Amino acid sequence: MPRVFNFSAGPATLPDVVLEQARDELLDWRGVGASIVELSHRGKEFMGVAAEAEADLRRLLSISDDYVVLFLAGGATTAQALVPLNLASAGQRADYVVTGHWGKTAIKQARPYVDVNIAATSEAGGFRDLPARADWQLSPDAAYVHITANETIHGVEFRDIPDVGDVPLVADFSSSIASEPLDVSKFGVIYAGAQKNLGPVGVTVVILRRNLLERAGQPRADIFDYRSHVKGESMLNTPPTWNWYLAGLVFKWMLAEGGVEEFARRNARKAAALYAAIDGSGGFYRNDVAAPVRSRMNVPFFLHDASLDKAFLAESEAAGLIGLKGHRALGGMRASIYNAMPEAGVRALIGFMDDFRKRHG
Amino acid sequence: MPRVFNFSAGPATLPDVVLEQARDELLDWRGVGASIVELSHRGKEFMGVAAEAEADLRRLLSISDDYVVLFLAGGATTAQALVPLNLASAGQRADYVVTGHWGKTAIKQARPYVDVNIAATSEAGGFRDLPARADWQLSPDAAYVHITANETIHGVEFRDIPDVGDVPLVADFSSSIASEPLDVSKFGVIYAGAQKNLGPVGVTVVILRRNLLERAGQPRADIFDYRSHVKGESMLNTPPTWNWYLAGLVFKWMLAEGGVEEFARRNARKAAALYAAIDGSGGFYRNDVAAPVRSRMNVPFFLHDASLDKAFLAESEAAGLIGLKGHRALGGMRASIYNAMPEAGVRALIGFMDDFRKRHG
Repeated sequence: MPRVFNFSAGPATLPDVVLEQARDELLDWRGVGASIVELSHRGKEFMGVAAEAEADLRRLLSISDDYVVLFLAGGATTAQALVPLNLASAGQRADYVVTGHWGKTAIKQARPYVDVNIAATSEAGGFRDLPARADWQLSPDAAYVHITANETIHGVEFRDIPDVGDVPLVADFSSSIASEPLDVSKFGVIYAGAQKNLGPVGVTVVILRRNLLERAGQPRADIFDYRSHVKGESMLNTPPTWNWYLAGLVFKWMLAEGGVEEFARRNARKAAALYAAIDGSGGFYRNDVAAPVRSRMNVPFFLHDASLDKAFLAESEAAGLIGLKGHRALGGMRASIYNAMPEAGVRALIGFMDDFRKRHG
Repeated sequence: MPRVFNFSAGPATLPDVVLEQARDELLDWRGVGASIVELSHRGKEFMGVAAEAEADLRRLLSISDDYVVLFLAGGATTAQALVPLNLASAGQRADYVVTGHWGKTAIKQARPYVDVNIAATSEAGGFRDLPARADWQLSPDAAYVHITANETIHGVEFRDIPDVGDVPLVADFSSSIASEPLDVSKFGVIYAGAQKNLGPVGVTVVILRRNLLERAGQPRADIFDYRSHVKGESMLNTPPTWNWYLAGLVFKWMLAEGGVEEFARRNARKAAALYAAIDGSGGFYRNDVAAPVRSRMNVPFFLHDASLDKAFLAESEAAGLIGLKGHRALGGMRASIYNAMPEAGVRALIGFMDDFRKRHG
């Protein structure tokens, strides 16, 4: 079957050229007679792949030497647990701004270790807007302030980096990293599961300001210790090599396509077109998020008549548009339009939506 | 280049047929028009892959319903940290039997959480033998007893499951799982990084006796809680889907080849032939491990003259035999001969070793 347009929220679509390269070298990586999946992580071949991936990500996001870059296993949820373990003393206050499902997950990982202060939450409004910075109740003695840069399920996104003074800002960037230029210097820690904009699931990027390594943190296993991972250059234990390699191919693709500046332009066009189609559907489709904070990556939308959902999903799939079912927490539909979703995919979706509306409106 | 024989300790060689299948369906998994790497972990396609992998592993190892099987991220080292967090109360006594490098790693992960009692260690003898069961100093009140079934670096292996009474036996089986039949019912927890006998790095199998879930454990993030992973069916967060899928292909291959009984026969033949070649080399090659506990999976050996090491590695690589360099902790050579290493590979290695000896002896 020809490749479809896949709007899955993550694991998500990957560039054809990346998958083609991974396919072509899966049994024989660059003439060594073995797959990159089979090679020792400490051999010169994978060490080269790993170093190139880091260099490319640093170039892509303009990450300075004040930051270390780690490639870890365990997903963003594990990263959420490592933040309090490494940045706070036991029971210390930490501020969390909750703007959707993943902010709540972050708190769940932190509560056993720190005194979680919910500095702001938009839950009462169904996470359809962001709490105004002026209303945040930050703690003067907080170990850090945690935000979720983009909420994958609710489709809300910080369009500006909030100023939290001298307290380190920690951000879950899983679903929007590398979708546009980012001023890394405004953050203490950025973490991101790779499976949306960076590549395959199974590897998590952690970008960590070096001076935070001076914090003692709290009792923890070696494998949960940032310092051990930094010392081990993300090879404290055997890392997920294939996943890291595939992310590296995605970084090279992004650089070749013009870097995050170019993806910012493409993503802005894709999101604008899709929201315009929803807003211009005369109420047939609906997105409830406040316009200034609508996510450029994840576009949840609802049909005016939920009894049409089943037909919408069946017909879109038949039209080669998959992964549109909304998260079970919200229902409805969701189109995830990360870097690897071409503009042609969004145009095809809009075309289908218009056609479906005419037939069922 | 044609495929070489890869003796890497892990990531390790995979069956050609598994890699060929993964290659052929990398861009289009069974006609859905997308890669399995790109599909939602909660979609029917991956859910089917995941369920089949579990069913196949249960069949392969005859795992009863008294046990749950988890497919987790984070490697065996993370699994080592989860054991004390879930099975012991804070500061409770736990017994560790140390028979090599990985036993020491297990202790490093456990010390922040439990009172580690080294019940036995063979470190004084350079980990060349196993401490006799009669000499173990087990604690009557231990939360569990931890062993490393096979030590990948030192090449020593438990050939019998030690009797530890009613205290749950926890075993790191990373480098020998599925290499022969195993009586799972003798264990409380078995864990194994997949990258040796089960497939690719990036997924870890945990086989857990259900009644151990009744233990309260100690304060921990949700993502470190066995019960949450069980409830979430290993999808508490986005699991490493491609790695899980590839492990599933390896399980199917193992079943098709005749299961663990057949691999036990092949592995016994491979190990016997290689040790015989070493022992029969008139001292040119040497393995220092006590014969009854020599590992069937990892065969470390030394050349009588270490100044020949460089030539041995260069010439073996030129002969299409890669990954033979010993771990940096021991030096010398190591041949890892897991399930996926064909008998022809071991014959080729023995042929090369004989030839090298004749030329340099």
